[in-house]
Amino acid sequence: MPPLDVKAITIIGTGLLGGSIGLALKAAGFRGQVLGAGRRQQTLDAAKVRGCIDETFVDWAPAIARSGLVVLATPLGHFPDLLARLAELDHPDLVITDVGSTKLRVCQDAARLLPDPRKFVGSHPMAGSEQQGPQHARPDLFRGRPCIMVDEPGIASLSSPPAERVKSLWQTLGMRLLNMPAAEHDRKVAAVSHLPHALAVLLVEAAISGQALDVASTGFGDTTRIAGGDPQVWLDIFRTNRPAMLDAIDGFQQQLAQFRQMLVTMNERDLKHLLERAQAHREKWGRQQP
Amino acid sequence: MPPLDVKAITIIGTGLLGGSIGLALKAAGFRGQVLGAGRRQQTLDAAKVRGCIDETFVDWAPAIARSGLVVLATPLGHFPDLLARLAELDHPDLVITDVGSTKLRVCQDAARLLPDPRKFVGSHPMAGSEQQGPQHARPDLFRGRPCIMVDEPGIASLSSPPAERVKSLWQTLGMRLLNMPAAEHDRKVAAVSHLPHALAVLLVEAAISGQALDVASTGFGDTTRIAGGDPQVWLDIFRTNRPAMLDAIDGFQQQLAQFRQMLVTMNERDLKHLLERAQAHREKWGRQQP
Repeated sequence: MPPLDVKAITIIGTGLLGGSIGLALKAAGFRGQVLGAGRRQQTLDAAKVRGCIDETFVDWAPAIARSGLVVLATPLGHFPDLLARLAELDHPDLVITDVGSTKLRVCQDAARLLPDPRKFVGSHPMAGSEQQGPQHARPDLFRGRPCIMVDEPGIASLSSPPAERVKSLWQTLGMRLLNMPAAEHDRKVAAVSHLPHALAVLLVEAAISGQALDVASTGFGDTTRIAGGDPQVWLDIFRTNRPAMLDAIDGFQQQLAQFRQMLVTMNERDLKHLLERAQAHREKWGRQQP
Repeated sequence: MPPLDVKAITIIGTGLLGGSIGLALKAAGFRGQVLGAGRRQQTLDAAKVRGCIDETFVDWAPAIARSGLVVLATPLGHFPDLLARLAELDHPDLVITDVGSTKLRVCQDAARLLPDPRKFVGSHPMAGSEQQGPQHARPDLFRGRPCIMVDEPGIASLSSPPAERVKSLWQTLGMRLLNMPAAEHDRKVAAVSHLPHALAVLLVEAAISGQALDVASTGFGDTTRIAGGDPQVWLDIFRTNRPAMLDAIDGFQQQLAQFRQMLVTMNERDLKHLLERAQAHREKWGRQQP
């Protein structure tokens, strides 16, 4: 693994993800400076107090000027604004990446808004929590988790020096790298993250309307934990991944209708096969997690 | 809280739930004996080695004869057989309860099969895990969790001495008691447990068929944890709670269709309202959990 060879990194947005990147960099022995940029001095100060960042910047220009790498870690809805501002602050050594949960739209925006989109590397570190804010940042949030690097025309090639720099960042944080086109990312992540989120939200809604929360226990707690996530973050995700989400919902509606039919006919053989298959795959997947 | 005043309790089925009842009784200072009954000597021995039970019985007659309380803790599918066998082993001081996840069918079976159904108390301690076997039993599994006591004609009245004995059991384990008719139980638990299980299983299936497990992370892990549960246990639950499950699925399909429509029209106001409402209720519920 090549060392992360930059003097300073600017993290825009120092909430749970941005803050955890800072903590993880320090825990990994990164010797450069971690600069925090944002809109609210209060969030920046909280991140600094927690040790996520070394300095705070509401005026980003001096931070970007010193940085070889900028990480966009705000909700996705701010990315077009951020990219437009970074276009004005560009300098020869600047590399930009992001932690956004959808990738096709982000890559299109970067290609459209940045003066040199070949310095933009789309990434999605698959780590997070329903908690928010730098006070919940953790240095081990990323360790052993997958990070998707986007292989897409119009932005940095994954064999280029900017992509190598970003790979070093995620590897320094202990992540397992995967490469794929943005559309494949968006489709897969709809299946394992965005659709589960929507279902968790609707399960909470079903429990409320059925006045059944009083009997809920650990299973409900696990299944709906992610419904505690930030509504604005998830609204941005649903908006920017709408086509893949609609496909995922359509597929799921078919699966649910098939399951319903198995219950109507009480097809024990097919039901058991389905339950056994899910159990085996879930357990195998679970054993591979950090 | 009245003390649990029986000399011996027989637990039929000493897996995760039955084993945890034994451990929790001992942790709570229960002075009587905990007898384990089952079909397989191996499971009984494992429960005894772990300290869940004091003695093992493959021939149940001597255990039942000594016990003032029997707890059915096998998968639901065995309950009719168990009740028929207990009918033959009945004695004046015997009280029977169960931990089954569906209640209407169980209460009907008890009323039909037992010589004196007024000594049967239907309960559902809402605690569990996707893990199986006495090796995963935990003394704190039940603490602070809800336990539903069934208020239903044809079985023990909840103000009768047999019900008081069963209440003492669950209170000794630290549970929060709720009373409701069996049909209300089955409907509510379909919403917060059985439907979530089905969705978790289908989410694993969607991830497999979309070849997306390689990018799955913590959110997927939480949402699908329960899909690791025992297929036979869940097949029994789905079979015995079929009407309530079908209603829950029908309601959920409507909610999912409404959510899809919000995405199609990108109705940000309604989407955000839904996300905010789920977040608020999930967080409030989470704060109330042990």
